[in-house]
Amino acid sequence: MTKRVYNFNEGNKEMKALLGGKGANLSEMVNLGLPVPNGFTITTETCMEYLADPENTVEVLKEDVLEALRILEEQTGKAFNAENLLLVSVRSGAAISMPGMMDTILNLGLNDESVEMLANNTGKPNFAYDSYRRLLQMFGEVVYEIPAHKFARALDNARNSKGYQYDSELQADDLQELIAEYKAIYQEFDHEFPQDPVDQLFEAVRAVFDSWNNPRAIFYRQLNEIADDLGTAVNVQEMVFGNSGENSGTGVAFTRDASTGEKRVYGEYLLNAQGEDVVAGIRTPNPIALLEEQMPEVYAQFTEITETLETHYQDMQDIEFTIENGKLFILQTRNGKRTAKAAFKIAVDLVEEGLINKEQALLMLDPKSIDQLLHPSFKEEALLTAQLVSSKGLPASPGAATGRVYFDAETATEKANEGEAVILVRMETSPEDIEGMAVSQAIVTSTGGMTSHAAVVARGMGRCCVAGVVDLDINYDTKTVNYAGGTIHEGDIISVDGTLGQIFLGALETVPTATDETFETVMTWADEVARMKVRMNAETLSDIQTGLNFGAAGIGLVRTEHMFFAPERLIEIRRFILANNPGTRAQAIQNILPHQQTDFEGIFGLTGDLPVVVRLLDPPLHEFLPHDDHEIEVVSKQLGISVDELTARVKDLQETNPMLGHRGCRLAITYPELYLMQAEAIIRAALRVKEDGINVTPEIMIPLVSTAKELETLRQIIIDHIDEIFVTTGSAVDYTIGTMIETPRACVTAEEIAGHSDFFSFGTNDLTQMVFGFSRDDANNFIHDYSSQGILENDPFQTIDLDGVGSLVKLGAVNGRNVKPDLKLGVCGELGGDPKSVEFFNQVGLDYVSCSPFRVPGAKLAVAQSTIKLAQ
Amino acid sequence: MTKRVYNFNEGNKEMKALLGGKGANLSEMVNLGLPVPNGFTITTETCMEYLADPENTVEVLKEDVLEALRILEEQTGKAFNAENLLLVSVRSGAAISMPGMMDTILNLGLNDESVEMLANNTGKPNFAYDSYRRLLQMFGEVVYEIPAHKFARALDNARNSKGYQYDSELQADDLQELIAEYKAIYQEFDHEFPQDPVDQLFEAVRAVFDSWNNPRAIFYRQLNEIADDLGTAVNVQEMVFGNSGENSGTGVAFTRDASTGEKRVYGEYLLNAQGEDVVAGIRTPNPIALLEEQMPEVYAQFTEITETLETHYQDMQDIEFTIENGKLFILQTRNGKRTAKAAFKIAVDLVEEGLINKEQALLMLDPKSIDQLLHPSFKEEALLTAQLVSSKGLPASPGAATGRVYFDAETATEKANEGEAVILVRMETSPEDIEGMAVSQAIVTSTGGMTSHAAVVARGMGRCCVAGVVDLDINYDTKTVNYAGGTIHEGDIISVDGTLGQIFLGALETVPTATDETFETVMTWADEVARMKVRMNAETLSDIQTGLNFGAAGIGLVRTEHMFFAPERLIEIRRFILANNPGTRAQAIQNILPHQQTDFEGIFGLTGDLPVVVRLLDPPLHEFLPHDDHEIEVVSKQLGISVDELTARVKDLQETNPMLGHRGCRLAITYPELYLMQAEAIIRAALRVKEDGINVTPEIMIPLVSTAKELETLRQIIIDHIDEIFVTTGSAVDYTIGTMIETPRACVTAEEIAGHSDFFSFGTNDLTQMVFGFSRDDANNFIHDYSSQGILENDPFQTIDLDGVGSLVKLGAVNGRNVKPDLKLGVCGELGGDPKSVEFFNQVGLDYVSCSPFRVPGAKLAVAQSTIKLAQ
Repeated sequence: MTKRVYNFNEGNKEMKALLGGKGANLSEMVNLGLPVPNGFTITTETCMEYLADPENTVEVLKEDVLEALRILEEQTGKAFNAENLLLVSVRSGAAISMPGMMDTILNLGLNDESVEMLANNTGKPNFAYDSYRRLLQMFGEVVYEIPAHKFARALDNARNSKGYQYDSELQADDLQELIAEYKAIYQEFDHEFPQDPVDQLFEAVRAVFDSWNNPRAIFYRQLNEIADDLGTAVNVQEMVFGNSGENSGTGVAFTRDASTGEKRVYGEYLLNAQGEDVVAGIRTPNPIALLEEQMPEVYAQFTEITETLETHYQDMQDIEFTIENGKLFILQTRNGKRTAKAAFKIAVDLVEEGLINKEQALLMLDPKSIDQLLHPSFKEEALLTAQLVSSKGLPASPGAATGRVYFDAETATEKANEGEAVILVRMETSPEDIEGMAVSQAIVTSTGGMTSHAAVVARGMGRCCVAGVVDLDINYDTKTVNYAGGTIHEGDIISVDGTLGQIFLGALETVPTATDETFETVMTWADEVARMKVRMNAETLSDIQTGLNFGAAGIGLVRTEHMFFAPERLIEIRRFILANNPGTRAQAIQNILPHQQTDFEGIFGLTGDLPVVVRLLDPPLHEFLPHDDHEIEVVSKQLGISVDELTARVKDLQETNPMLGHRGCRLAITYPELYLMQAEAIIRAALRVKEDGINVTPEIMIPLVSTAKELETLRQIIIDHIDEIFVTTGSAVDYTIGTMIETPRACVTAEEIAGHSDFFSFGTNDLTQMVFGFSRDDANNFIHDYSSQGILENDPFQTIDLDGVGSLVKLGAVNGRNVKPDLKLGVCGELGGDPKSVEFFNQVGLDYVSCSPFRVPGAKLAVAQSTIKLAQ
Repeated sequence: MTKRVYNFNEGNKEMKALLGGKGANLSEMVNLGLPVPNGFTITTETCMEYLADPENTVEVLKEDVLEALRILEEQTGKAFNAENLLLVSVRSGAAISMPGMMDTILNLGLNDESVEMLANNTGKPNFAYDSYRRLLQMFGEVVYEIPAHKFARALDNARNSKGYQYDSELQADDLQELIAEYKAIYQEFDHEFPQDPVDQLFEAVRAVFDSWNNPRAIFYRQLNEIADDLGTAVNVQEMVFGNSGENSGTGVAFTRDASTGEKRVYGEYLLNAQGEDVVAGIRTPNPIALLEEQMPEVYAQFTEITETLETHYQDMQDIEFTIENGKLFILQTRNGKRTAKAAFKIAVDLVEEGLINKEQALLMLDPKSIDQLLHPSFKEEALLTAQLVSSKGLPASPGAATGRVYFDAETATEKANEGEAVILVRMETSPEDIEGMAVSQAIVTSTGGMTSHAAVVARGMGRCCVAGVVDLDINYDTKTVNYAGGTIHEGDIISVDGTLGQIFLGALETVPTATDETFETVMTWADEVARMKVRMNAETLSDIQTGLNFGAAGIGLVRTEHMFFAPERLIEIRRFILANNPGTRAQAIQNILPHQQTDFEGIFGLTGDLPVVVRLLDPPLHEFLPHDDHEIEVVSKQLGISVDELTARVKDLQETNPMLGHRGCRLAITYPELYLMQAEAIIRAALRVKEDGINVTPEIMIPLVSTAKELETLRQIIIDHIDEIFVTTGSAVDYTIGTMIETPRACVTAEEIAGHSDFFSFGTNDLTQMVFGFSRDDANNFIHDYSSQGILENDPFQTIDLDGVGSLVKLGAVNGRNVKPDLKLGVCGELGGDPKSVEFFNQVGLDYVSCSPFRVPGAKLAVAQSTIKLAQ
């Protein structure tokens, strides 16, 4: 027979799935012998049973609950409607803490009759009628969904008509009148407050269960990727009254400082109050330290209990307590929420205190929270009153910044040089905007996704960026942005939250970045534990330095397209693309060579002996051509090609679907000299730095391979070309040649491809696009509909799609290693920095992941956690 | 030990791989006791051995060949340089007949000495010196690559200086002079004719082997998908002389008429001649029938042998013979090449004659050749002198047509209405060009691939089309096309070959289509044998009728996008797309409903009880919007939207990669009403025709699914909507809902998807694009480089890529059926009409393939063949 109800003495903290977090911890505390009011828990399974078949479930549940009530009466020596009056609280409690559901009904069991008993027994009629008044209010709101303002207004009227300032001034007869008014409100909504406490209880239980599916709860689950079929438990617990006099009270305390992590009990309490009074903020609570003076014995007992709980749970605790007539009760304990900074300090401290080991410490930390340490964020208080412009943007690059809006890179640069904090707002960015982006505090675009130019470049720079803010209507001519609530003009101040993808009007105060010793300690521990390495995706010297500072184990992706953009190179690659004869083409490419060699020398000079993967040219050539009339005219003069011809050539090279067009290794099948020049620049740079004692083994990566034959062909010509360089120079270096695995076909035919490859690097951006058939640049148009309808649980560009993309990555890895057991495997897509994805890559057995420099610490932590979990 | 040389009496016809086709058949004929000159064959394996290591191979081969020569001398009683003079022919012979290689050297063994013996022995000095002269010429050309014109000019001079008209008038002393001159030509090229017959033989063998890798041979193999490692055999055979007098001769005959298939020996011969004289066309050969008068006994023997050979080979034979002094020799037999029309007649006749069974007959036919029967083609003679404009086009839709060039649909329509044969030449076509395409004899585009609008629509219409002719430079303003050789103006006549993808200047004569009784018989046999069905991709009534005439088993793909293009519908779908409120949107969609219902009633009226798969809307909505300024202005007025707003909306909806954008089922996730309207139109049409006694079970297909959840969601709302219709109308029909499997993710997650699908239809066009990452519209820019470098053996859009796309199709099919054993499986991409791909689909166990109506017969034959092969 299914057991639907557990007395607190029957559960323990491992039973969270069945009893919910709150129920399991109440049981656990009972087991620890702590002073916890008696009670019982109705299971989460019963909730799912109820939601599928409400009436029958209530029917079968009735018997179990009545039996549980009988035991509770035994334990407490109290009963509903009895002289020794039993009152209970009813609280929801899911396995994972979750706002949005019905929370609490207190004082359940009171009715017209028992309220009199309570008044008589305690001799505190004010307290008794106030408790009844509160029950009516909470019950009406949550069970019958009577609007809260109805009760609030009646309460205000009662108070005001008497000229009172505080609710607590209301006297027994005032409260009796108010109770009558509350009942009238019930009538207004065609309800009647049930006088039978058992009826009250079942109505409350139903309300908790139903609240599992209220819109706020559903939305919260979606947002936090919580499964819909977990259900919530219901905890029914004997009431204790913090508001039964000046010898009573209630409070909340953390065992450590949730903001700094410092080890000291930290919290607040109010005497003669119930929990909601502390939260409501009408009376100012006392700091917990004051309790030592006011109630030294209770304080001593409480601090002892905090120690017990922290030791028992091996983590900082968030504890709710009530004091009833001088007796301490613990109502709840749970792992306390904390800032990222505090989390690091607490984890390290707990290890030093011997409470946990390093592995446990690593597992306590959230890799995603590291962004808080590395990037500034807006102060929470500032956000409370901030005026939102849009929350529909993609959190393309984390951080928080305030500045004045400019719509073009030139003006932004000019104003920044004058000392202004500027924010570059554009429909999209292109390589020409790079300087403007570099001087901006933040970048905002109205189109483009997480892998758009703006997003990728901003992440590389560690610059805050919100991309694809679809509800911004940018007009370059009028230099304005229209949004739902108004218009922003050039020079207006806005604040941009790149961590959450939000934009606000005006300036908001920020919390600065903070990496410290504890951060370094955790990173060292992570390195000790991890098997898989974390490299960085970077090509500029400053980004590389950042990644090295964060402990990157090398570079997993040097994108070389940027090495064609400086003016003296751009003109040559344009000459190359537009050339009509092989001679011009060869000369143009030779003119680029020395520049790129210098770039690589710079990179190798920084990375030293660390591994460096260089991806040969990937984007389609038309990205290098001029697009607007003015630019075409300039280039026409530079290259001596007529405007008409140039326009025609630019048009010829346009593509319908550039993502699937003439790019990647396909370029080199047509123009081998492109890759040969790049390979030469890499090898000559390696030879050059070798003279300085740097032994780099360049890993040359060929992108977008879909057939083994492509790779075989290009690999061979590159090897031949490098052999010639070795002969000419009389010197040599080690190098490897590998490929990106980023087309579905490359995954499926990995066995053949591995035969011609020293390493695979999974390019999860393109792979995801092709596996789903989603263009990242266009998916914004429908991805909102997909997540709001629950069709996609995660954005597959941010967290790996295990069933589709994941299956193919695994297939590619396994098949590649079948042929070549020592094949080096890595990943260099954006997913390389996502903790959940990193866990998968670690399981699959990749040798490294590679991500933007600022994501390196988070990835390292995720790798360590995944390794620990795998070992368990 | 490897056996490198086989005497003709050691081989048989099954040994083609080792002995080549010619060698195996010579052996076979020896086994049959036919009069074949003695000889031996050097194996194809030796050729590959030689190409890898020439010198060592010749070394080891020497011994084997000398031994074979010794046996040949025994068999013939002749010897090199001996009184009883042995002369041999040396011929190449690969397993698959292949032009481009060195063909034949005759009279090998003659030298300055033995030519005198031959003159003396035969008493025919003219014949002897002429034989020597021919040897010198053939040997010089093929072994030393001396330009043929050198020898030809010397021969011309010799003839002219004597005032002769024919070479045969040359006398012994003329020929001796010519021989001296030929030797001088050798000297000029630093060669000397080897006097030792064994040296001659080995030089000739090397030349045959080397010719395997000459450019023409390589090109031919590429074109015909013949592996490069097969190698060629060398046949060394005793010479018999058709030119040794009036009692000698040589000829070629087919056992049936290669043009019509009629059963009669059919061929030509010349008395006193060698084979090359027949080919050279200087003397007019006699029809074979004349031989009966001239040499009745030889003729009787020959006809008997033709019967023997045809019976033995169970196929029409192409036989070379020589008569030497009244004695008949058979030099070669092989299955004769024939026209498609003849092929069908011969196959059917052979069955009727009891020589073969139906299965054998089906296997004899080439499914690709059926195009010849269904579409006109240019006369071969006409092509010989035709002036090529371009051969770089894609053979997008087969057929041959001549007409006047027009550059826009309007003018084309106007001229066609005046009775002109017109050819529409455009950069690309769009739905607005449909009428112009329908009235044209052929369509030519300069961009776009095999699945471009022009290609797909033309194939559907059965209209000849060449797409993506990259070397045409079309200028709409000047109404001209520039090509490498000149300029074509509006109104100029061109001829278009859609079967080969070629364009010619001027008018070319065509061979008309010809399906007849034998065609029908073969199709009936194919249906009897086949398991897998062949449906058609069609939506217009005329195309559907065509497909039904060709025996299509239903429709595998009704594309519904065309159902939005008629003006009264286009305005509504535009209103829908541009609407700012749900009300306008709902009304617009309701206005389209009755039109589409009428369309479906028409379709079901034709197809009757046959299955019909309707694909719900697939292309992105921006395809329905106006693009140029004029059109935008018109639509602005029609819909009462300002030009500015309309322009902005059109721009908003543009996509970077429309192929991977907001299309397919993604449209219906955003706008469910679109698919609900279409489903309603389908179901209401089915209900309507049910009243006429037509029981159609519509198969509603949802395109571009990449997650099971998309399908689950859409399937449910469609079912709910249809249920309402059934309730409203009080009537019902059976229907199914399935999905296209065309994203890699759909293949990988087929198990989940099958749970929500009644059928899968593999969309191989999109699947191929995504598996490779090739945009079909853009791949033209690099696909030439891919095939010329041998990186792609086949165009994967024309023949299935087994390793990549094929693996995923198989995975999808197997996994789908794992979950749902009765899951109906089909394919509706272009590959559904490709014989090689059809064979694969049959192996995988699909229930049907679907292709354009004109490809149905070829597909049916391919299915039958594949079924027979699988059974074997």
